[in-house]
Order: sequence, then C-alpha cells, then structure tokens
Amino acid sequence: MAKINENYLNLPGSYLFAEIARRITAYKAANPGADVIRLGIGDVTKALPAAAIEGLHKAVDEMSRDESFRGYGPEQGYAFLIEKIIQFDYQPLGVHLDTDEVFISDGSKSDVGNFQEIFSLDAKVAMTDPVYPVYLDTNVMAGRSGLLGPDGRYANITYLPCRAGNSFIPELPKQRVDIIYLCFPNNPTGTTLSKAELQKWVDYARENKAVILYDAAYEAYIQEPDVPHSIYEIEGAKEVAVEFRTFSKNAGFTGTRCGLTIVPKTLKGYTAGGEPYPLNQLWNRRQTTKFNGTPYIVQRGAEAVYTPAGQQQIRELIAYYMSNAKVIREGLQSIGLEVFGGVNAPYIWLKTPQNMDSWTFFDKLLQEAHIVGTPGVGFGPNGQGYFRLTAFGKAETTVEAIQRMKTRLKL
Amino acid sequence: MAKINENYLNLPGSYLFAEIARRITAYKAANPGADVIRLGIGDVTKALPAAAIEGLHKAVDEMSRDESFRGYGPEQGYAFLIEKIIQFDYQPLGVHLDTDEVFISDGSKSDVGNFQEIFSLDAKVAMTDPVYPVYLDTNVMAGRSGLLGPDGRYANITYLPCRAGNSFIPELPKQRVDIIYLCFPNNPTGTTLSKAELQKWVDYARENKAVILYDAAYEAYIQEPDVPHSIYEIEGAKEVAVEFRTFSKNAGFTGTRCGLTIVPKTLKGYTAGGEPYPLNQLWNRRQTTKFNGTPYIVQRGAEAVYTPAGQQQIRELIAYYMSNAKVIREGLQSIGLEVFGGVNAPYIWLKTPQNMDSWTFFDKLLQEAHIVGTPGVGFGPNGQGYFRLTAFGKAETTVEAIQRMKTRLKL
Repeated sequence: MAKINENYLNLPGSYLFAEIARRITAYKAANPGADVIRLGIGDVTKALPAAAIEGLHKAVDEMSRDESFRGYGPEQGYAFLIEKIIQFDYQPLGVHLDTDEVFISDGSKSDVGNFQEIFSLDAKVAMTDPVYPVYLDTNVMAGRSGLLGPDGRYANITYLPCRAGNSFIPELPKQRVDIIYLCFPNNPTGTTLSKAELQKWVDYARENKAVILYDAAYEAYIQEPDVPHSIYEIEGAKEVAVEFRTFSKNAGFTGTRCGLTIVPKTLKGYTAGGEPYPLNQLWNRRQTTKFNGTPYIVQRGAEAVYTPAGQQQIRELIAYYMSNAKVIREGLQSIGLEVFGGVNAPYIWLKTPQNMDSWTFFDKLLQEAHIVGTPGVGFGPNGQGYFRLTAFGKAETTVEAIQRMKTRLKL
Repeated sequence: MAKINENYLNLPGSYLFAEIARRITAYKAANPGADVIRLGIGDVTKALPAAAIEGLHKAVDEMSRDESFRGYGPEQGYAFLIEKIIQFDYQPLGVHLDTDEVFISDGSKSDVGNFQEIFSLDAKVAMTDPVYPVYLDTNVMAGRSGLLGPDGRYANITYLPCRAGNSFIPELPKQRVDIIYLCFPNNPTGTTLSKAELQKWVDYARENKAVILYDAAYEAYIQEPDVPHSIYEIEGAKEVAVEFRTFSKNAGFTGTRCGLTIVPKTLKGYTAGGEPYPLNQLWNRRQTTKFNGTPYIVQRGAEAVYTPAGQQQIRELIAYYMSNAKVIREGLQSIGLEVFGGVNAPYIWLKTPQNMDSWTFFDKLLQEAHIVGTPGVGFGPNGQGYFRLTAFGKAETTVEAIQRMKTRLKL
C-alpha cells in the first residue's frame, strides 16, 4: 500500500492567496461595477529591463544553430553568470566568494523550500513571526513542525515575534535552535536589521553551531546606510549562514525565473556524532541529483543585467517602485495610520485602525475603497492586526488607490 | 547543533559521469593527439526546432512591454501549453485528461526526483536494474534505501533485474512493494514493454495498492506498433500511475528546461489508517509551495512545438537521431557484438565482448578507438557486462565512430 506523507495533512487547508482570491471573486460577483485595485501580491508589473531582453534574444538566436546550441549545462549554473554576480554584487561589499560557492537556480522559492532537505529531520527550526509562508510550510511537509495548535502555532517551531512593540527586531531564542530563517529587508513587514543586530544572530549561530538561512530577496531596495546588503558583511557569517538572492525583485524576473544561493565552503553542519560536514558538498549533491540547471537563455538574460545599461535600468525600476512605496507610506500616514517598512523595502506594513483584526480590515478596504491588500495574520499569529500593501503596482494605480483610501475609507 | 541529513552519506562517493570525465581527462593528458568522440551522455546536439525559436522570440518581445509583460504564472503551468499537450499527445491515444491533471515543470529530472516526497518514508521502493540513477539516489537521500551492501545493492530497495536472459522484461516482485519506478522506452537499455507486459504491472499495482512512477521521456522515439506511448493506454492505469514526460528529448530542450507530470485525479495514495487520498492534491500542494512555475518564455517555446511546422521539425529531429541509432546498431552487429535497443529508443545497449566488465570495455574503447560511452554497471549491478552508446551525436561523427570501432577495436 503506497502510504502518503501524512505531514502534508498538518498544513492548513486554505492557502492565504487562495482565500484572498475567493473573497475578491465573491465581492466582484455581488458588485459588478467595482474597479478593484490590487496591492496585495508581491509581483512586479513593469517590463523586463531592455538589457535583459537583448540578452534573451541573443541567447535564443544561439539556440537556433547547431554550432552555438547549448544542451545540458552545469546544474550549478554557468560561470559567465556566477562571475558577474561575485564581481558586481559581492566584491563591492568586501565579500570574497569562490565560483563554487554560488549556485544558480530557477528562483529563491525553490531554493528556500528545498534547502531544509539537507538537514536532519529532528532539527529545531526558528523563524520570525510574521513570516514568508514557504519557510514554515516546507518544514511542516518535512515533519519538523509537530502539530498545529489552536493558537495558530506549530508545537515544534520556535516563533520569533516581530511587532511594533519590539520595533520588529526579533529576540534571540531562549531555547536552543539549530536552523534559523531570517529575511531582511523583511517580507512582509518591510523592516530591516542593522549590522549590529545581525551580528548578534551570527554570534548566536556560532556559539550554538546553528545555521542561518538568510533570505536577501529585497536587498536591492535598501536605501539607508548601516543596513547590510548581505549577511556576509557580518563578521563570522561565512561559517554559519546561507544566503538566498533572486533576480525577481530587482530585474523583474518573477515570470522569467532565476535566483541564486550562496553556500560558503567554510559553512558546516554536523553529523549525529558531532563531526563537522561541509554544507556546500551536500547542497551540490542535492542540486546535481534533483535539478538540471536554469535555462541557458534565462542565465544569459540575467547576465545582461550586469552591463552598464542593465545596471542603470535596474536602478530605474527600483526607483519607480520605491516612489510608489513613498506614496503609500506618506498617504497612509496622512490619514492617521501607523505604518512600517516602505523605506528600504517594497512592502508597507500597517497597523489596522481600532485594533481591527486583519481580515476585518481586508473586507473593509475592499468594500469601501475597492482595494485589495494582504491580511497580516496570513503571515503568522503575530501578523494579526497588521496588513500588507506592496509597491509593485503601476504608479498611476498606486496614486489612485491612496486617493481612494483618503476619501472613501471610514476611519 | 545543525545536524545534517545523514542519508546523503549513504550515497556512493563518485558519480558515474564524474568518473567518466576523470578518465577522459587523464587519457587526453597522456595522449594529447587523440580525437575523442563522445557517445556517452544522453544530451542532444541539434539546434532547437525553428518553431520553438520563433515562439521564444515572440515571448521575449512580450516581456519587453508593460502591457504584455508576465510576472508570476500558475505554478502548475499555463493553460495554453497544457491544452496543447492534452490535444496533441494524449487525445490521439484515446487518453482523456483534465487540465488540472497536467503539471508543467522545469524538467523530468526535477519531477522524478521530487515526486517521492509525497510518500511515506517507510514506503517500499522497487525499480528496474539497470536504472536511471535519479530514481535510486533521491530515495537514498530521503532515507528509504537502507545501507549499500558490498554487492552494490541497497538493503531496502527491490531491484528488478533486466538482462538479456529475460529479454529485459522485469518480473513482478516477490515481496510486496509500494512504489515502482518504470521507464519505457528504457534508459539505459533502449528496450520496451509491450502493452500486455505493462498491463501486468498495472494489475499488480491495483491489487497491491501500489503506485507506478512511469517515466516516458523517450516515447517520441517509438517506431513499432504495440509499444505503448503512455501508460494510460493500459486499462486501469489512471488509478495507479503517474507519468513523466519532457521536451528535452523530442524538441531538444535539455538546456531550455521544460517537462511535465500527469497526476490523474483518480490516482490515490493511502493514509496509515488505509484511507485513500488523492495524490493530485498532494502534488499540487508540493508544487505550489516549493516551485514557482516554468519560465513564461520557455512555456511559449514548448507550445510552438505543437504548430504544424513544429510537429514536422520534431519528426525530422527524431528521424535524424534514429538514423544514428541504426548506424550504431547495425555497425556493432556487423563486428559481431550483441546489441539491444536502438529501435524504439535513442540508446544502444551492448553486451561487452568476452564478458569483459563494463569499465574494462570503457577503457578499451577509449584507448583503441578514442570513443567514450557509458559503462553499464554505472546504472546498477545488473548493468555489469553491458555498455551504453547514445544516438544523440552528429551524423558524421556517429558514422566516424562506428568506422573506428570496425577498424581499430581488437575483438
């Protein structure tokens, strides 16, 4: 009898964005005239940078001739892309990486989801709360979570609350943990950690032989100094941290699919007997066995982002979205709402008025202003009473959305 | 302490193709003049079909304008591609599929490797021997294999020997198994199962509530009647079988990355209590949580293969490689070697002369004829004494390779 992985049955039934879609559909059916603006999902809306388009076309042409056709490539990615990433994204930060410490993938979601596979099933996992659901769900599926309690928390997960009360700065766990998921600039709160705060986590991991899985998907949005772009700017991080990056949010690759994961060769896990073992080798084995590389044409598209024109185009894209973030942030403040994020990140995290719960505010915003956002509680129990808006919309639409909130929302 | 997944330490140290590369490098260093021909790896060499190139360029252009830009797509793939697959690849076989039974992916290797995740860790796994190493290695990594014995077999894996003695037709297992990996036309042997033979496996699975993971990567190469193109041509298969397909081997997408997996809604796994549970739901949850879809442009490239021009171009590609297969097959026979496959598959499986072991023949072929193939033992203990050549080379090179074997090989 082919028994299923029953850990899947511990997952909550309805996924956040499915429930949002259901409510929008119901509302539109009842109100056919409503012009609904979506500021909910973290998907970009602007076209790919012209440099990437050029790189893609050129690579497609190469695939049309036997002489320049490319079949299977290295599962870890092509050197032409890896070298550019090291040179442009890490060397300026003073971070030295070898080419075999960089793994190109089809996106951060895959890597963040798959990385837990190389750890023991009894590893103790900690993550911020609220959190990007993939960190949690993939550990539930693997069997590390224990059961979901009535308080919305899994028994064996260590939640690190991030709320206005602690300025969204997680405290070090009181019980010992083995794997720690951190994402800064943060999704969903849009907040950051200073170098000094991040140093505390690296020190904790070194002392406890823990591993930090650091999601830097939004690093390109950082505007302020003293906010680390990479965890490897922190002393000792190469011994304890993996870093995930993506071309989705800086170069608009959400539908084109390219990300990368840094696994330093000095980073160790441990056998049950306490012997150190390089995680780089394990991840390499995982990727070569279960993955066949990112499409050649996509890697050429990503490479083109590192041309001078490509770099300028990326800066313009980010400036465009960050201008939306400013509009949202200042607009919400002007109507008396308490807001966080939106300064070094494309996410604005607002405290619901009158301590409304997240879904009540969702319905209110949809009904009164025809605007869709994401209920904070969907990201974890400590997201309750918060709400996420994203800066990835069109500029005109974002201005219109804020105008509606100013004029129609009954606060 | 972040403990590692120690199942990885049960994997054999050196991967087959790494060892091959090492021997070639050593030989070339010692013999700089040798013009080595590679007929070893299953990678295609001809350019993408013109229709796919056109589809890719058009999709890249769409990504260059805000109005037609595509961000996140459905994790399961776009309907435009799924509908074409059903219409062109399954309806002509009399197989009806719903669109939500087809999952587009970045390739068969990923899906074949990941699918085991949705089964219990104590599931008993069976696979043919020799076998595509991904089936085995991913189950070792998950912990289902037990330890590797001195005979090259893992304690908890059920091996289904396929040798000349049984015409490469696996026998039903004597002990009960839960998950069965089958690949026909087979990699590495190039042999097939008749519909009657495959019916036995479907019947076994129905009787034992087992699940068949059916890899149909090479179905486009089938030339003879009575060889099933899909397991769903077999009565009852939709209750017990998953099917994996790919655009790699018919349309040359090895470096472009697109595959698909069929998970019928009538296919069930079982809870520990014996309750049936639809695997379609579990796989959907796996994919939506850990995967973010295949690149839009790649899906458009795959879709273009279903135009009349695209279909014609694919037929020409396959005819080209199958002409190589004929050259290899008949050439080897003419020098007295015993060969299998190469009729409905791009692989030729030869019995080594004088019962030489596979690696000895590898070295002999490299030294005497400067030709690289793949030692059969690399695919499992029952591959010992066999050797794989592939038809994916250039026609001229393939002819030259056979000429060399005829004139230089000391048999």
